[in-house]
Amino acid sequence: MSLPGPIDPPARLLMGPGPITADPRVLRAMSAQLVGQYDPFMTDAMNEVMGLYRQVFVTGNQQTLLIDSTARGAIEAALVSLLEPGDRVLVPVMGRFGHLLVEIAQRCGAEVHTVDIEWGRIAELDVIEAALERVRPTLLATVHGDTSTTVLQPFDGLKELCERYDCLLYADVTATIGGNPFLTDAWGVDAATGGLQKCLGGPSGSAPATFSARAVEVIERRKSIEAGIRAEGDAVAAHPIRSNYFDLGMIFDYWSSRRLNHHTEATTMLYGARECARLVLEEGLEAYQARHALHGRAMLAGVQGLGLEVFGDLEHKMANIVGVAIPDGVDGEAVRGTMLADFGIEIGTSFGPLAGRVWRIGTMGYNARTDAVLTTLSALETVLRRVGVAVPTGGGVDAAYDAYGAAA
Amino acid sequence: MSLPGPIDPPARLLMGPGPITADPRVLRAMSAQLVGQYDPFMTDAMNEVMGLYRQVFVTGNQQTLLIDSTARGAIEAALVSLLEPGDRVLVPVMGRFGHLLVEIAQRCGAEVHTVDIEWGRIAELDVIEAALERVRPTLLATVHGDTSTTVLQPFDGLKELCERYDCLLYADVTATIGGNPFLTDAWGVDAATGGLQKCLGGPSGSAPATFSARAVEVIERRKSIEAGIRAEGDAVAAHPIRSNYFDLGMIFDYWSSRRLNHHTEATTMLYGARECARLVLEEGLEAYQARHALHGRAMLAGVQGLGLEVFGDLEHKMANIVGVAIPDGVDGEAVRGTMLADFGIEIGTSFGPLAGRVWRIGTMGYNARTDAVLTTLSALETVLRRVGVAVPTGGGVDAAYDAYGAAA
Repeated sequence: MSLPGPIDPPARLLMGPGPITADPRVLRAMSAQLVGQYDPFMTDAMNEVMGLYRQVFVTGNQQTLLIDSTARGAIEAALVSLLEPGDRVLVPVMGRFGHLLVEIAQRCGAEVHTVDIEWGRIAELDVIEAALERVRPTLLATVHGDTSTTVLQPFDGLKELCERYDCLLYADVTATIGGNPFLTDAWGVDAATGGLQKCLGGPSGSAPATFSARAVEVIERRKSIEAGIRAEGDAVAAHPIRSNYFDLGMIFDYWSSRRLNHHTEATTMLYGARECARLVLEEGLEAYQARHALHGRAMLAGVQGLGLEVFGDLEHKMANIVGVAIPDGVDGEAVRGTMLADFGIEIGTSFGPLAGRVWRIGTMGYNARTDAVLTTLSALETVLRRVGVAVPTGGGVDAAYDAYGAAA
Repeated sequence: MSLPGPIDPPARLLMGPGPITADPRVLRAMSAQLVGQYDPFMTDAMNEVMGLYRQVFVTGNQQTLLIDSTARGAIEAALVSLLEPGDRVLVPVMGRFGHLLVEIAQRCGAEVHTVDIEWGRIAELDVIEAALERVRPTLLATVHGDTSTTVLQPFDGLKELCERYDCLLYADVTATIGGNPFLTDAWGVDAATGGLQKCLGGPSGSAPATFSARAVEVIERRKSIEAGIRAEGDAVAAHPIRSNYFDLGMIFDYWSSRRLNHHTEATTMLYGARECARLVLEEGLEAYQARHALHGRAMLAGVQGLGLEVFGDLEHKMANIVGVAIPDGVDGEAVRGTMLADFGIEIGTSFGPLAGRVWRIGTMGYNARTDAVLTTLSALETVLRRVGVAVPTGGGVDAAYDAYGAAA
């Protein structure tokens, strides 16, 4: 059997909902050689990563670290560590990733209650409050920005609600962190988990996360230290966390000065996550978010300038993605296929009720750039024209230029 | 707050139990740019990875793929997917990683029975059979090579025992795969999970795994497809797998031609895992294992040539690691510290009953090389001499040279 050759990916401009083109600086950082798991250089790098992501999450939380999985695994780490079987959790479901929170919480054995919102809308505060009053959950779990709908859920007022109804607040910030304002401490968020492959400009496989002192207290109560490394006096919990790999108590110990052995930290992914945070903070968190806002506005103006309808509540749109209604009679997958095959540009499809109805175009991380926006709009115009859609000549790029000009 | 600079690890020769120095070819592969999750190039690469690891695992198993976590997460994926709460599992515990299997199986809600073996010994077939007869488990779960003790568990006869007592056979091959013979199909192994950071010469963060048709049948019975992407007629299990992230049924669907969305495959880790397998198969699986055997013999001869006692059952020693008894009166951590600080060489400590008593020296993956072995033995001789241990001058390197000469 002949072996496949060295990996040699084709040139692609990834303008979908993520993963997007990784920043070359991140890939270069990931080519650095390994050191040992407890090498002082490694433990220093872990501490640096904690410090960097505290700034990205705008938090003073000690427990700010990486989960060694994709973003989905970090959601599970948060929920399985915070929820005991039978605990009530409230999830506003506004898109595909709200369903994912429900699904994961159910697997944790939690009693899951939902507020079902039409895809494309936000969950209003009074609706959440009514549900909190009815359900009295121990946790309110919500997606910050659901790429399936492009809508950004406001967090104003959630802190006060969670205090009033005495529950913890979890946020899935996979698709938003870095590119959209997210204030962990100011917003009273007890647990937030992200991913590298959206606004942070890295590959998936490591997930930054942060946990408040209140969340840590709940988790520590449930901690068990495993036999084989357990010392006398170490905790054995009455209701241990159902997962070993995602037991945040043990992960905290590994990231603490105690350095208690758990998994073997994914060093190369850690190097990458570290560089992602350095990119954000070198540019400045606010400037990084302003850049996402700018190129997001330009892409929005561009698709509208092509005469296309935009999906979702534009008052609450994520900076880094736009949903585009596929014109009547157009085969959305054929257009995506031509964009990829002839222009090397990937745009996204959607899920569930939006499958076949909406494209999703991202402008995030490394690809929140003028040339990426203009190239994508130009290619989209050409492909639409060739499948017979009447598009105004140059309508996309001209509108984007105008958006940039207005900002200059 | 000033930012830390670009990642810049010190030069290290990692001769511990792993992670070891990554093969530079693997790091180069990991610097390749990303493509989209469903890009034909990506799905082809996933299929190639399946084919490559079938050869590494010596199996025809369709379900041979990567779990997006460290090796520990892949163990959990296997156990949480194979074991329903209340299922009986039998675990021979011969070292730290046997305890880990117990711990993970308990978190899955399984009824866990153990055969407790003195650390440094193998589990004999008759002892396992007696326990199988007594316990009647649905799963026999065992570590193939437990780095904590350096002992390689023989699998001869386990297939027949598992057939006789009608149970599945799981093997944790994290520390052995690639560097020690492992014949998934011939040995009747139903599930095996590995890691990249030992004999395969990559970083941790992705875990190759394989599952037999029998294992797949058990997993498929428990599969639930999550709301949000569930189609009419899709399965909803009576006893769904307790984890979403580690639900192998859903992971199989993602790796199948159906490409049902689950996690976002960790592309860069996949590129690395692919190159690890290419390294093994380019050299040839048998040659790769013979190289591990050769350098393992040389390192063993070398530490014995220094007059050091070796820990564990040498008749059943893993090719890629040797346990060295720390001489009386020697501060093992001080020696390790000097090796690292003055020679840039990492050797390992041990766990539990062996902590402070045993060093562990690895020869695996990229570091199963003559220069790595001789350099380590030479440095160890120097450091031991300087802390006052009477070591024969050149005793380590000479014995290693002899071992190489005998093989030439």
